[in-house]
Amino acid sequence: MSEKANIGVVGLAVMGSNLARNLASREGNRVAVYNRSVERTNLLVSEHPEANFIAAADIDAFVSSLAKPRTAIIMVQAGPGTDAVIHQLTERFEPGDIIVDGGNALFTDTLRREKEVSAKGIHFVGAGISGGEEGALKGPSIMPGGSKEAYQTLGPILASIAAVAEGEPCVTHVGTDGAGHFVKMIHNGIEYADMQLIAEAYDILRQAGGFTPSEIAEIFVQWNKGELESYLIEITAEVLKQVDAKTGKPFVDVVLDAAGSKGTGVWTVQTALNLGTPVSGIAEAVFARSLSSQSAQRAGNSGMASHTEAWSIADRDAFVEDVRRALYASKIVAYAQGFDAIRAGAKEYNWEINLGAVSKIWRGGCIIRAQFLNRIADAYGKNENLLSLLFDEYFANAIDASLSSWRKVVAHSSLAGIPNPAFASSLSYYDGLRAKRLPAALVQGQRDFFGAHTYKRVDLDGVFHTLWSGDRSEIETTPSSH
Amino acid sequence: MSEKANIGVVGLAVMGSNLARNLASREGNRVAVYNRSVERTNLLVSEHPEANFIAAADIDAFVSSLAKPRTAIIMVQAGPGTDAVIHQLTERFEPGDIIVDGGNALFTDTLRREKEVSAKGIHFVGAGISGGEEGALKGPSIMPGGSKEAYQTLGPILASIAAVAEGEPCVTHVGTDGAGHFVKMIHNGIEYADMQLIAEAYDILRQAGGFTPSEIAEIFVQWNKGELESYLIEITAEVLKQVDAKTGKPFVDVVLDAAGSKGTGVWTVQTALNLGTPVSGIAEAVFARSLSSQSAQRAGNSGMASHTEAWSIADRDAFVEDVRRALYASKIVAYAQGFDAIRAGAKEYNWEINLGAVSKIWRGGCIIRAQFLNRIADAYGKNENLLSLLFDEYFANAIDASLSSWRKVVAHSSLAGIPNPAFASSLSYYDGLRAKRLPAALVQGQRDFFGAHTYKRVDLDGVFHTLWSGDRSEIETTPSSH
Repeated sequence: MSEKANIGVVGLAVMGSNLARNLASREGNRVAVYNRSVERTNLLVSEHPEANFIAAADIDAFVSSLAKPRTAIIMVQAGPGTDAVIHQLTERFEPGDIIVDGGNALFTDTLRREKEVSAKGIHFVGAGISGGEEGALKGPSIMPGGSKEAYQTLGPILASIAAVAEGEPCVTHVGTDGAGHFVKMIHNGIEYADMQLIAEAYDILRQAGGFTPSEIAEIFVQWNKGELESYLIEITAEVLKQVDAKTGKPFVDVVLDAAGSKGTGVWTVQTALNLGTPVSGIAEAVFARSLSSQSAQRAGNSGMASHTEAWSIADRDAFVEDVRRALYASKIVAYAQGFDAIRAGAKEYNWEINLGAVSKIWRGGCIIRAQFLNRIADAYGKNENLLSLLFDEYFANAIDASLSSWRKVVAHSSLAGIPNPAFASSLSYYDGLRAKRLPAALVQGQRDFFGAHTYKRVDLDGVFHTLWSGDRSEIETTPSSH
Repeated sequence: MSEKANIGVVGLAVMGSNLARNLASREGNRVAVYNRSVERTNLLVSEHPEANFIAAADIDAFVSSLAKPRTAIIMVQAGPGTDAVIHQLTERFEPGDIIVDGGNALFTDTLRREKEVSAKGIHFVGAGISGGEEGALKGPSIMPGGSKEAYQTLGPILASIAAVAEGEPCVTHVGTDGAGHFVKMIHNGIEYADMQLIAEAYDILRQAGGFTPSEIAEIFVQWNKGELESYLIEITAEVLKQVDAKTGKPFVDVVLDAAGSKGTGVWTVQTALNLGTPVSGIAEAVFARSLSSQSAQRAGNSGMASHTEAWSIADRDAFVEDVRRALYASKIVAYAQGFDAIRAGAKEYNWEINLGAVSKIWRGGCIIRAQFLNRIADAYGKNENLLSLLFDEYFANAIDASLSSWRKVVAHSSLAGIPNPAFASSLSYYDGLRAKRLPAALVQGQRDFFGAHTYKRVDLDGVFHTLWSGDRSEIETTPSSH
């Protein structure tokens, strides 16, 4: 134990163990490991002698095993457990040491923790880590938020274990305090939308096109060679190829159609609501999962009218291409909304987030990794103040080429009774953003009528109210406060 | 000052003053009034000698002026101000006295306050009050949550000032602690959806149908005679009739099309997300407002492709009827989602909420008042465990009669490039609830592939995982915890 570790990992469940092994496998790292129950520590150490871990039986031994500045990554389940470990470490660490929370913390918890820990001169880094168990072991996408000073020590260590995309490690200093966990949250929100869009494309291909799961798998394999190339498209093909051994049926047909979730999609939508940023595609994806899980309600649906209009498909190749384009266009909207939410969060919390750098670190390691993220990096690289991804030339052209198909797919699936919540919501968002005038003016009129909430005019500065219960003349006023 | 008041009002801004005047106008009430700045108290008292108010110059005088059990309604802006007044009153009130918060409090604040106040033996009632300034004066819809004991004293007082619908006062004991403010929040959420749906109907009539605002006003007047009869339809006609005196243009064309909000729509969606209840129509309405307010972004939209397909309308009457039916069907979905959220909230917070009684107290006084609520009361009256409003015979028949039109309107507005977020989302929800199988099964497959999140099967009990990176056999497992 005379040699010290340059990095430690606390919490050795699958994610923590894999991250520790990943760290140990990179040149220059010596890794200390600690778990509340020592059995797990011993198991990891005995199963992986090649890692040359420094195993700590208790928290004091763990802290003593770390070279200064001490740097420890906490990999425990998000919540009170995280606070307990932080407390143990802050009691023992010295100013200049670094505590990293690598769990899926809500960014507001990270804001609070950073304030508490940094008050003692200790650095606190909230690091979003994406890629699941395999990513943790082989190379995740890492989104650390914290001080620049902490990143000087931590950055090279994280870069050593991160996924590599086109020669660049998938890690960047996202911003201060909660920025990393915020960006990870949005990543997951986008992931929800992306998955729901893929599911809708599959449903339409199957219900309207009559393709079998294995035929659709082949369609996804083809799609994965083009603009849609991504990990999610790739694994969708794998899932659709799978045949259930017990029944001989397509795997997707024996799985219960009730989608679960772990909460980060909900956080994304709730946060965007607070920020006043529309993330309607993500919201529809989250609600589609919750609707799918209303088992009692869905079991009672037998009497519901359908009145569907069959989608008459003359050219099956053209139909498949229409669905592909609808998926691509909707996906662009989901990412546009997600990046808008990051910008809104950065403004609210005073983070300097480089949107291009964020899209680059998502190119590898994480669930939404895709070629497509290079185009987003290009877009924000050309213009870091880009008002919407939809205004960038590349994406504007992509939408231009897809829009007729997108409209057709939304229209026909609506007529055919195939649920299309994320496809339709994304198209509506596009048309709403595109509109010269929105009926929001009527909503303002209603609000002024029943609540004296006032309105602005298109042609005059000031705030106005019409005396609706009086002579209906207009008065200039100040905004109401109720 | 020898005579005591049976009810007091703290906070005399417009809502508080009007509520105090309403109380004073009803036989049997004597009303004490108090405001932090005494000028406002004096103004109210001098302007309304008919009310025979007992004016209190300070909080002690106010408390002394109340007969026991002392009953005071707080009408201050929701937030810290409310806590300050509650603190003042609890310091002076005795066990058995009643504090009512009549502001727009978030129900979780009400839960906290009720716990704090009731610990001292004092009753705390969180009462949602809807109807705006005019409702407060002439008769609002009131949604009180608190103990049954408090309602014995408070109920008759609230009944004396509430709106009356078909002979019944629009007030009921909603449930304990936060139930009243929760139901008021959902009321507002439904209001958002209802307003957005009306706005979309207007937009479609105008853009696709080519009707002028005054022609659309007349259409709304006609609609208000049928199934859609409601206060919101009525005032929409009034707003659309209005001509701007300064320009001679339709009023709706001079109003800036950026819709504001006061937060209760956001709360509704955030709460429903926590409860796992889809309120997609309300979410789309909230996001439509936030999109309309992205002024910088919208100003940059000039280069966006449109590729619209004109809506060829042969029969204008039939077109109008199609839009009416789409509006009605979407509205039913919005209410179905809202009532589902109330049921989910009741389950989560252990409230016994009578959904039929809730719909009845919304028939008068509040913004969403409508004949239609009688049908909701009938539905829950016949079956208080109704799984969805959409399954009730009356509403099922209404949808049956509307569904073809609804599909047509969503399809054509999508092709025509007219944003239809709430129309389309509601239809998707309907089709999702109706579906025998949802592509959520594919989502579960994806989640199991990348995150080992496991899945259930349609044909076997248990929880399963496929060894996707192994031999792709299936193993039985327990749900993963990460």
